[in-house]
Amino acid sequence: MKVDISVFDTTLRDGTQGEGISLSAEDKVKIALKLDQLGVHYIEGGNPGSNSKDIEFFRRMRDMKLNAKITAFGSTRRKNSQADQDTSLVRIVESGVRAATLVGKSWDFHVTTALQTTLEENLAMIYDSFAFLKRRGLEAIYDAEHFFDGYKHNPEYALACLRKAAEAGADWIVLCDTNGGTLPNEIYEIVSRVAKEIDKPIGIHTHNDCELAVANTLAAVQAGARQVQGTINGYGERCGNANLCSIIPNLQLKMGLRCVSDEQLGQLTSVARYVSEIANAVMPVGQPYVGNAAFAHKGGIHVSAILKDPKTYEHVQPELVGNQRRILVSELAGQSNIIHKAQEMGLDISSGNERARAVIEKIKTLEHEGYSFEGADASLELLLRDAFGEQTQIFKLESFKMLVEKSDGRLVSEAIVKIDVDGDIVYTAAEGNGPVNALDNALRKALVQYYPEIMNIALTDYKVRVLDEKDATAAKVRVLIETTDFKNTWSTVGVSDNVIEASWEALVDSFRYALMNCKKTPAAQEDKREQLGIVNH
Amino acid sequence: MKVDISVFDTTLRDGTQGEGISLSAEDKVKIALKLDQLGVHYIEGGNPGSNSKDIEFFRRMRDMKLNAKITAFGSTRRKNSQADQDTSLVRIVESGVRAATLVGKSWDFHVTTALQTTLEENLAMIYDSFAFLKRRGLEAIYDAEHFFDGYKHNPEYALACLRKAAEAGADWIVLCDTNGGTLPNEIYEIVSRVAKEIDKPIGIHTHNDCELAVANTLAAVQAGARQVQGTINGYGERCGNANLCSIIPNLQLKMGLRCVSDEQLGQLTSVARYVSEIANAVMPVGQPYVGNAAFAHKGGIHVSAILKDPKTYEHVQPELVGNQRRILVSELAGQSNIIHKAQEMGLDISSGNERARAVIEKIKTLEHEGYSFEGADASLELLLRDAFGEQTQIFKLESFKMLVEKSDGRLVSEAIVKIDVDGDIVYTAAEGNGPVNALDNALRKALVQYYPEIMNIALTDYKVRVLDEKDATAAKVRVLIETTDFKNTWSTVGVSDNVIEASWEALVDSFRYALMNCKKTPAAQEDKREQLGIVNH
Repeated sequence: MKVDISVFDTTLRDGTQGEGISLSAEDKVKIALKLDQLGVHYIEGGNPGSNSKDIEFFRRMRDMKLNAKITAFGSTRRKNSQADQDTSLVRIVESGVRAATLVGKSWDFHVTTALQTTLEENLAMIYDSFAFLKRRGLEAIYDAEHFFDGYKHNPEYALACLRKAAEAGADWIVLCDTNGGTLPNEIYEIVSRVAKEIDKPIGIHTHNDCELAVANTLAAVQAGARQVQGTINGYGERCGNANLCSIIPNLQLKMGLRCVSDEQLGQLTSVARYVSEIANAVMPVGQPYVGNAAFAHKGGIHVSAILKDPKTYEHVQPELVGNQRRILVSELAGQSNIIHKAQEMGLDISSGNERARAVIEKIKTLEHEGYSFEGADASLELLLRDAFGEQTQIFKLESFKMLVEKSDGRLVSEAIVKIDVDGDIVYTAAEGNGPVNALDNALRKALVQYYPEIMNIALTDYKVRVLDEKDATAAKVRVLIETTDFKNTWSTVGVSDNVIEASWEALVDSFRYALMNCKKTPAAQEDKREQLGIVNH
Repeated sequence: MKVDISVFDTTLRDGTQGEGISLSAEDKVKIALKLDQLGVHYIEGGNPGSNSKDIEFFRRMRDMKLNAKITAFGSTRRKNSQADQDTSLVRIVESGVRAATLVGKSWDFHVTTALQTTLEENLAMIYDSFAFLKRRGLEAIYDAEHFFDGYKHNPEYALACLRKAAEAGADWIVLCDTNGGTLPNEIYEIVSRVAKEIDKPIGIHTHNDCELAVANTLAAVQAGARQVQGTINGYGERCGNANLCSIIPNLQLKMGLRCVSDEQLGQLTSVARYVSEIANAVMPVGQPYVGNAAFAHKGGIHVSAILKDPKTYEHVQPELVGNQRRILVSELAGQSNIIHKAQEMGLDISSGNERARAVIEKIKTLEHEGYSFEGADASLELLLRDAFGEQTQIFKLESFKMLVEKSDGRLVSEAIVKIDVDGDIVYTAAEGNGPVNALDNALRKALVQYYPEIMNIALTDYKVRVLDEKDATAAKVRVLIETTDFKNTWSTVGVSDNVIEASWEALVDSFRYALMNCKKTPAAQEDKREQLGIVNH
C-alpha cells in the first residue's frame, strides 16, 4: 500500500506529559500493540535516558515483530560535552531501536534563556548528536522545538538549526509548535518556506493551546509536510498534543491522502476507546469521529431527516471510522456490536427472534446503569448464552462477607463466602492482600474441589472506573477484570455503587467463563466433606 | 469601545442540543447574566415556538437591563403557508425580543429530501419570513443551514438563498457548517466569494465534527466574516459547536481583533467554569485557555525553563484570560516544581536547607511507591507543613474496621472507627452507600463534636487508579479525593494495595486540610460523653 502521509504516534512519550496520564511498562506494551494494528508508522515509546520504566518497555519490545517502527526519544547532547559520552544518547543506542527522535532548540531566545549557551554551541549540539545517531546506523528524526516561535523571532537562525541537522544526516525535519500558539495561516506560510529551503522530508508536531492543533497539522500537510506527529485522543501536556484520531480521518477521508488501510481506519474508534480505558482517562462524549456522541442525533428534525438520508446530518459514514450512529431517545439505536458478537457465537439474533429482542433490551438497560461491554467480551458472551437458554451458572451465592481491619498499624483483609454448588453448601474463608484479593482467594478455595481447573487461571488486570464522579465516595463504580488461562485471555465487568460488590460481580463472571466448558468433578469424598465444611442443602 | 467582531452566543439554544446538557429557565437566566458580563453581543435564548421553558425565559429577561441583545430562534415559515400565520414566527414576535435568528435551508438536497418541497418554494419561505420580521421591526439574522455543503453541491442555488434573505431585509447573513465536515481552506475560499457577492455583514456558525470548528471560524473571519456564532465550552449536538472560549482569545490576543474589553476577557475562565457548573458538565482538564491544565507544567525541563521565563513554554499570559499557571509535581519533574509550591507557601526551601532536602527525598520515595501529588495539592501542602514542623494532625487512629456483607440479596456497608482526639478516645460506627462512604460517615460522626465545621464540607470527586494492573486484585491502587467547602476546593491522595486503606488515607488528609485552620471546640459536656462513646485515654 502506497502511503502519502507517515503517522508518528507519541502517545507513550509526549502523551504521558498530560495531567493524570501515567502508564506502566505493561500498559505501554499493550498500547503499542494496538497502535501497530491501527497501522501507525512510528511508535515513540519513551525516553530511555530518563527512566527505568522506559528502558523496560524497550527491552520488552525488542523481540516483538511489528510493522511500525518503535522509536526512542532524547535531547541533543548537553552543552560543552561530547555526543558519544552523553548518557542520554548512549541509552538510546542501547535501547535497541532502529529509529530515534531528538528534540533540539531552534528558537534563539530558548538557547540563551533556557539552555544558557551560545547560538553556535546549540548548532554544534544539533550537528554532533545527529552525526552520532547516523554513525550508529539509526534512522534519525529532528524535532525542532519551538520552531515557529523561533522562526517568527529570528528566521535565519531557526533555518540554520534545520540545516545543521540535515547536514549531519537527519532523515526527517519535524517542525514543532511546542507552545501551541501559532495560527493555521502562519503554519502554512512558514512550512511552505521551509519546504523550499530544506531538502529533507518535513514533519509537523503541534499542540492544542489555541484549539487549533488539528487545523495546524492539516495546514502543514497542505504546505508540504509528509509526517504528522500526535497522540491518541490528543493526550499531552497542558491542552494536549494534536489528536491523531481526528487527523487520520481528516487526511484520509477529506483530503484523499492515504495514511492507513481502510480496514485499519475502521478500527479507529475501538483503538481510541481502548487507549482511554488503559490510560484511565474519560473520553469526552463528543470527541470528533470516535466519541460516543460523535454520530448521535438528538433534535427531532435532525432525527427525521437522518431517517430519510443519513447524509443530511452526517459529514461521513460512522462505519468508516468504526463508530456508529445513535438516535437518542429512540428504539432504533444501533446494536451492531452485539449482533456481531452473537453471530460469531452462532446465535440467531435476527430481528424476528423474541430472545434476541429481550437480550438487546436487557443490554440497553445494563448500559444505562453503567455497564460497558466494549471491554468485557466474556460478560457479554455469558449474557447472550444465558438469554439463549444455556446453563452457565456454576454456583449460587448464599452470602459473602468482607472485612478490612486496621489496628495497631496492622492491616487485615478477610473474606467469608457461602455458596451453593449443585446442592452442596460450601462455607469458607480466606485472607488476602486487599479485599478483592481476599474474595478471589475465598471463592477459589470454595470451588477447587469441584473445578480443580480454577487453579490454572490467573487474574492479570484489575481496573476501577468511577462513574458520576461528582457523587464522590457514594458514586457508582465500574470494575473490569482480565483473566488468562495462559492460552486465552478474557475480560469481565461489574457495576455497583459499592466497589466490593462490583468487584465480586466481575470476579464471578470471570470464573464462570473460565469453567464454562469444564466438567464438574464428583463431590468430595464423604470423609473429607466435613473437614471442607461442605453440608447438603 | 470599537468592536471589530460581533460575538453571538448560542449556548442556551444550540448548546442544549449537546448530549447530557439540559438547562432550566432559571439556569438560562443565570447563564445569560454571566454572558452579559463577559461582553458577548447577542445571547440566543431559545426557541419560543418550540417549548414553554423558553417562553418563560424570554418573559423573565424582558425587564432586565443588559448590554447584550437577547435573541429568539426559529425556522423560516412552513412550506405552502403564510408567514404572519406561522405560529413559530408569531411566537418570536410575542416573546418581546429585539432581534431574532431564523434558520433556513440553502442546500438543494435538503430542500428536496428533508423539506420535500421545491427549490422555488424554499426561496419564497426565506423571503416571506424575513420580510415578516422586518415589518415587525426586529433585527433579523439568517442562519443559512448547511451553506457550505450546499455551496459545494450547487453554488448558484446556495447564493440565491442568501440573496433572497438580503432582499427581504435580513441584517446578517450567517453561513453555517451544520454537519461540521468542511475544512478551513474551503471555508476561506467560499466565504471570500460570498463576501464579494452579498452586500450584507456576514457571520459564521461552525460545528466541531472534524475538530476544526475554531479554525473554521478564524478562517471565515480572515475571509471577511464579522460575526462569530458559538457556545461556551463548545457545547452542542454531536461533537459540539464552535467554542467561544477559544475563539474570543484567539481573535483578540492573536489576531488583534477586538471582541470584548480586556477586563471582560479576564473573566473568561470564571465564566467558562460557571457555565460548566450550571450545565453540570465536567470540563476537560486540558481545555484550551480556560481548563485547569491549560497552563500546567509537568516535565522537569519545562518547569525549570518556566521558572527562568514563563514565555519559554506559554503562548500567552494566563492572567489575560483569568486563568493561572500551575506547576505539577510528578515523577517526570525535577525538584523545581516542589520548590515552586513551597515558595508559594512561603517556606524556605533553598538548597542549603536540611528540612527541604529531607522532604524532597520523602516525596521522591512516596512517588516511587505510587503516590502522585500532581492532582493532590492539599496532601502535598500537608506534607510540606509537617516537614517544616507545623502540627496538622487532628487525631490519631487507634483502629478502623470496615465490613461489607451481602446476604439474601441485601448489601450492607458498615464502618467502625476508634480515634484519639487529644486524649479522648472516640469509638463510633456508621453505615454508608458503599464502604468508603461508610468510613466517611463514621469519621465525621467521630469528629463533629470537636470540629462542627466538618459538616460544611462535601466530597465532590472520588477517583481510583490501579497501579501495576498486572498484579490484578492484589495490585496497588491510588485514590484521589476532591473536597470543597463551597469557597475553595482541594485534592488529596492515598496509596495502598488495599483500596479501603488508600481511600482512608485520602479521606483523612482531606479532613486534616479542611480543619487545619479551625480551632478545636472543648470536648463534649460530661453528661454527653458516655452517650457519644468518648472515654479518656
